[in-house]
Amino acid sequence: MVNHRGPEFASVMTDVLQQLKPFFGTTREPLLLTGSGTGAQEAAIVNVLSPGDEVLAVTSGVFAERFAAIAEAFGAVVHRLQGEWGFPISPAAVRQSLKENPDTKAVLVTHNETSTGVTNDLAAIAEVVRDTRRSHHPLLIVDGVSSIGALPFEYDAWDIDVAITGSQKAWMSPPGMAMVVLSEHAWEAHREARMPRYYWDFTKARKNGDKRTTPFTPAVGVIHALQEALRIMTEEGPEQIFARHRRVGRRVREGVYELGLELFADPSAASNTVTAVRVPPDIDASRLIRDLRQRHHVVVGSGQDWLKGSIFRIGHMGWVHDEDVEHLLAGLRTALEDARLEEAV
Amino acid sequence: MVNHRGPEFASVMTDVLQQLKPFFGTTREPLLLTGSGTGAQEAAIVNVLSPGDEVLAVTSGVFAERFAAIAEAFGAVVHRLQGEWGFPISPAAVRQSLKENPDTKAVLVTHNETSTGVTNDLAAIAEVVRDTRRSHHPLLIVDGVSSIGALPFEYDAWDIDVAITGSQKAWMSPPGMAMVVLSEHAWEAHREARMPRYYWDFTKARKNGDKRTTPFTPAVGVIHALQEALRIMTEEGPEQIFARHRRVGRRVREGVYELGLELFADPSAASNTVTAVRVPPDIDASRLIRDLRQRHHVVVGSGQDWLKGSIFRIGHMGWVHDEDVEHLLAGLRTALEDARLEEAV
Repeated sequence: MVNHRGPEFASVMTDVLQQLKPFFGTTREPLLLTGSGTGAQEAAIVNVLSPGDEVLAVTSGVFAERFAAIAEAFGAVVHRLQGEWGFPISPAAVRQSLKENPDTKAVLVTHNETSTGVTNDLAAIAEVVRDTRRSHHPLLIVDGVSSIGALPFEYDAWDIDVAITGSQKAWMSPPGMAMVVLSEHAWEAHREARMPRYYWDFTKARKNGDKRTTPFTPAVGVIHALQEALRIMTEEGPEQIFARHRRVGRRVREGVYELGLELFADPSAASNTVTAVRVPPDIDASRLIRDLRQRHHVVVGSGQDWLKGSIFRIGHMGWVHDEDVEHLLAGLRTALEDARLEEAV
Repeated sequence: MVNHRGPEFASVMTDVLQQLKPFFGTTREPLLLTGSGTGAQEAAIVNVLSPGDEVLAVTSGVFAERFAAIAEAFGAVVHRLQGEWGFPISPAAVRQSLKENPDTKAVLVTHNETSTGVTNDLAAIAEVVRDTRRSHHPLLIVDGVSSIGALPFEYDAWDIDVAITGSQKAWMSPPGMAMVVLSEHAWEAHREARMPRYYWDFTKARKNGDKRTTPFTPAVGVIHALQEALRIMTEEGPEQIFARHRRVGRRVREGVYELGLELFADPSAASNTVTAVRVPPDIDASRLIRDLRQRHHVVVGSGQDWLKGSIFRIGHMGWVHDEDVEHLLAGLRTALEDARLEEAV
């Protein structure tokens, strides 16, 4: 294992940080954190907020709810803008909520809600938050775990304050590392922020990052994987990767319709990285998922929370191409036929 | 990447948890956390303590200081029992401190202080803490990051409450995962503990662990590596591994003396997993470390904190055997000779 305080590691880290920037749409330098996406959610909150701060959490799925729950666990006063699951967040509703809660210190938004297969219109939501900044400056904190690197993301242009993502999603690497970008506005908030923190502290991450190391031992192997993945991604190019995800996402949805199935998400906001499919009433969800895995080597996710048993979720981010989608759809077709035949026997 | 909610992962996790137990010296079930050793230190504190709780931190090195700093960051009232760096903690001093601070809720001990190359007499310290439990029940929280799996550790027999370790140390795996064991006493404290937490929450870890998964996406690749490492370790056997570390540690120290060098640690407490060596006054530490790496393919650590420049540290835990030590000592001999020759020119 390479020593994370040595020159080999520094060179890999320099390369990784540089190559991440175009996918975030930023010229700012990312920080590397050791942990999963949820750890990065926690880091994003505890580094810029203080107990008692008012937070607007825009929630319509498991991951947005988790973001809100973390803020509450650390003492924020959380106002929830509850959207219907499967539908995109309404920017007008965000505008209204910010009017009703003029002391809002931060807005928590999940760009792509993995539990429902919905991509929110982050550009429009960001515009609303930006508009209100003139008077009371809410921070825009974005969970981009299942979007950044696969979907268009314009950190600088949209004026985002904190954006997080995780190595195991669009970055095609094993889980274990998270990446975060902070604006100057967020760094200012960080200096005042009083939520307790040590492991996730961004001052430590930046101080060490400037020396091309991490404050604590990182998942070195994952960073090496990230370097190679980013080489491949840079070669393909951000625009080409975004186009491929659009094409793959569209083909998954078409295939799902062809099988007589329905999306859980409103089609206007269906995600190009994950598709949530309603399980037909005559099919047992857990059995379908098991058959897909055992007989067809297709791994799909189950529904989470109250959606368990009523949907399954197809991930299609990262190294996913047309032939993978056809393999998936063929397996799904046979598994559905088998399930119905066995049911009929 | 294997789905961490699927049966393949569950089987790997079951195997890993089972095989960890003999090295902790426990029949209790470990929890898996995604992060580095410092993350596990934070987890150990925030899960069993409340702001305002009095904590006795036994500190004589960088990692023990970090343990104390984390407790302070989360609002504990920390009493430091400052030992001299390079010397073992005196159990009698712990006894005295506990007498002077009768409201102590927890004692933080670093079993093996990686920054100074000292192994503390944990059995004796644990006995002192156990003695005082009759009246006021302090929790014994142990950082075993650089000890467990390489040095004898008797979680059950010594009556420890929280013990943590990290995948990249004795476990011969890449960094990214931490493992922790809790006593019933610690679980009771957990239910009352009010330090804010979400990502590190042990209730979530246990609830998911019982179903052989983790609350959030773990560093799956590291867990697979751990499984293979534990297979090798179980084959060699805990007693044989501890004996090998004793032999390797002794040989490193002998070799260091033969080169005319001095240990930083008091020889009575010199660690069998890491040896801190004083840099002679006529040698430039950073140059020696660089030469060892570039010319001899030997990677040693620099001194930390105020020891930077005055010591270097040789790690010898995990997959380290006699021939590795001879390779190290030969490289060190030549590097020292070269440094002196070049200095003389």
